[in-house]
Amino acid sequence: MLIKSPVDEVKKRENSFRIISSILNQNGRNALYDLTGLAGGFKLSQEDLDLLETYAGPAIFESQLQNLGKAHLGGEKILAFNRTTSGILATILALVSSGDEVIHYLPKFPSHPSIPRSTALVGASYREFDNLDEFEINDNTSLVIITGSTMDHDIIKEDEFLKIIELSKSKNIPVFVDDASGARLRTVLYHQPKAMDMGADLVITSTDKLMDGPRAGLMAGKGEIVDLIKSKAHQFGLEAQSATIVGIIKAIESFSGERMLDAFRKKHLVYEAVKKGINSIRETPTGVMLSADDLINELNQKGVETEFSPADVACVFAALLLRNYHIVTIPAVGMPGASPTIRIDLAAKDAERIDKDYIVKAFIETFSHLNEI
Amino acid sequence: MLIKSPVDEVKKRENSFRIISSILNQNGRNALYDLTGLAGGFKLSQEDLDLLETYAGPAIFESQLQNLGKAHLGGEKILAFNRTTSGILATILALVSSGDEVIHYLPKFPSHPSIPRSTALVGASYREFDNLDEFEINDNTSLVIITGSTMDHDIIKEDEFLKIIELSKSKNIPVFVDDASGARLRTVLYHQPKAMDMGADLVITSTDKLMDGPRAGLMAGKGEIVDLIKSKAHQFGLEAQSATIVGIIKAIESFSGERMLDAFRKKHLVYEAVKKGINSIRETPTGVMLSADDLINELNQKGVETEFSPADVACVFAALLLRNYHIVTIPAVGMPGASPTIRIDLAAKDAERIDKDYIVKAFIETFSHLNEI
Repeated sequence: MLIKSPVDEVKKRENSFRIISSILNQNGRNALYDLTGLAGGFKLSQEDLDLLETYAGPAIFESQLQNLGKAHLGGEKILAFNRTTSGILATILALVSSGDEVIHYLPKFPSHPSIPRSTALVGASYREFDNLDEFEINDNTSLVIITGSTMDHDIIKEDEFLKIIELSKSKNIPVFVDDASGARLRTVLYHQPKAMDMGADLVITSTDKLMDGPRAGLMAGKGEIVDLIKSKAHQFGLEAQSATIVGIIKAIESFSGERMLDAFRKKHLVYEAVKKGINSIRETPTGVMLSADDLINELNQKGVETEFSPADVACVFAALLLRNYHIVTIPAVGMPGASPTIRIDLAAKDAERIDKDYIVKAFIETFSHLNEI
Repeated sequence: MLIKSPVDEVKKRENSFRIISSILNQNGRNALYDLTGLAGGFKLSQEDLDLLETYAGPAIFESQLQNLGKAHLGGEKILAFNRTTSGILATILALVSSGDEVIHYLPKFPSHPSIPRSTALVGASYREFDNLDEFEINDNTSLVIITGSTMDHDIIKEDEFLKIIELSKSKNIPVFVDDASGARLRTVLYHQPKAMDMGADLVITSTDKLMDGPRAGLMAGKGEIVDLIKSKAHQFGLEAQSATIVGIIKAIESFSGERMLDAFRKKHLVYEAVKKGINSIRETPTGVMLSADDLINELNQKGVETEFSPADVACVFAALLLRNYHIVTIPAVGMPGASPTIRIDLAAKDAERIDKDYIVKAFIETFSHLNEI
């Protein structure tokens, strides 16, 4: 195995950053195509910058954050986190005790690792379901988590969502929705209501996913619960700092679903073109993807055997895509436990600057290059 | 008691932010005097902003962070955190297991709450010492922590520091130095060496403390240990985001000890003036302070009895100072468990814009106002 430990993942990420840095330094930002859909951004003005102090910053931007956050997510109170992952940690620290159980329902495995990790940290047990018939709540369940859209953008069905809410309410258990991408994918492309409007107690979304904000987590929820979580966030340093808060405000102000809808309409062009060379390519709501397992199958079908794991091979594919075609995908730069799927997000800002044929050519040539290696 | 729980502290902080926000909105930034010494700042250019994306940002600024971070703190590898508190959490998550013991030496109690909190979270035991003769290491000690300068700016003696290093090395236990303010107070005002140059394995400092950076934690240390901690930081969302990284770079580039040395020289002027009205005022390295206990004693000496706790009374004092004189001090805006001491830091940027007599007048009048209440 190439990536044997979380520290290896740190090294992989550092290596990819060195490649990105050399591309930026030698050829400038326009030579890089971040197609992760997570590029995010920072639309601050000089005037904003001058106010970004430890205390003056949060004070002046707090009311804007509350108003815009509620407009985007609903709920009574808004709280910004350094990352969605740290928001999940703060929530579990605040609502789950040792010996409790956390139940997690998602449209399709695998789940994001931050939820089981934080649950284990507080000494609680964890179970996950992607089949409604098997879903069950125990007496010691203290939190139900719903994932609105998975890392590979599988979307939860609205009736399943409502059923989980109903079951949880019947046992008086709070429901926390991880809507990292779902808050926009579900509502803009699949016309589902906001999580808070479907009865959730808490929801969190990632403001660099499918919107031009900084990497951060934005939570909305019932006031009393958010206060408990806010206190934990402050105790462990998990809250967003003032520059990030301003970045979130600007991202919500400038958000429109247009790029998502455009990608939703055009993705089939890329899908059909790549399919000619790589049969197991699949569509996502806003682009195309090749799972690590499918990548291995494709190699095997070409008579290529490898002792490396699917995640390792996907990581090499992503590294080649980055080095040779300057295309950034998650397996090259993702955090420990991020999905190994090679996913091209056509809603990414950089997708507007890149010709679809270039993406198809990069994908197919990288696959044959991998064949050779 | 006024502040009975961490959630009450959240409400107190939100209330202070509303006062700060109304001062900024009605009278502008120059009408506010942040004398916490933690105002920090954000010296980014528009060009910096354009690169602040989730992946391009960290990639381009990583090498600058490493070089400047090592120049400021020493060590082999640099890692930036969302806050010093989250850096302490990541370190304890990486180096301490359930059943271990964390030993903490500091010049004077109380210690910062983040260390015992994180230790409890991993199920380890915690002991602290402020007397070298009592200091001891057990067989199950897996981490020794030294505080270079306490929240109230009590500074560790160099020979004590070296003794703790020696004892820890003799038992092969890593030493982590919390130099939040110490990295600059110890070195600029007391000419002590950097923590890494005195044999520490890890050090962390707060880049909004006594320098014009964002609220964040900057760690330096031995490469292998930093990699373990980096992996934990990524797993729980504790690392600094790109805008914060650029803010740290600019803060180190612009750092000079001049304002600290100037405050060190002039603090006695404010000290002597306030002492005429409040006898138990004390000097800090860069200003003056009145502890919560001394505040209660002063009231009692004036014949004023109160059933409120010292921390509550200090919090009211800080709130009056903010509302009536627009002076920000930590008890009004600090995080859960922050020191209740009323501390005026003359090295704060805003101290340059405020006449010493105004500070003295605000302090003495607020004290008599408190008398009345």
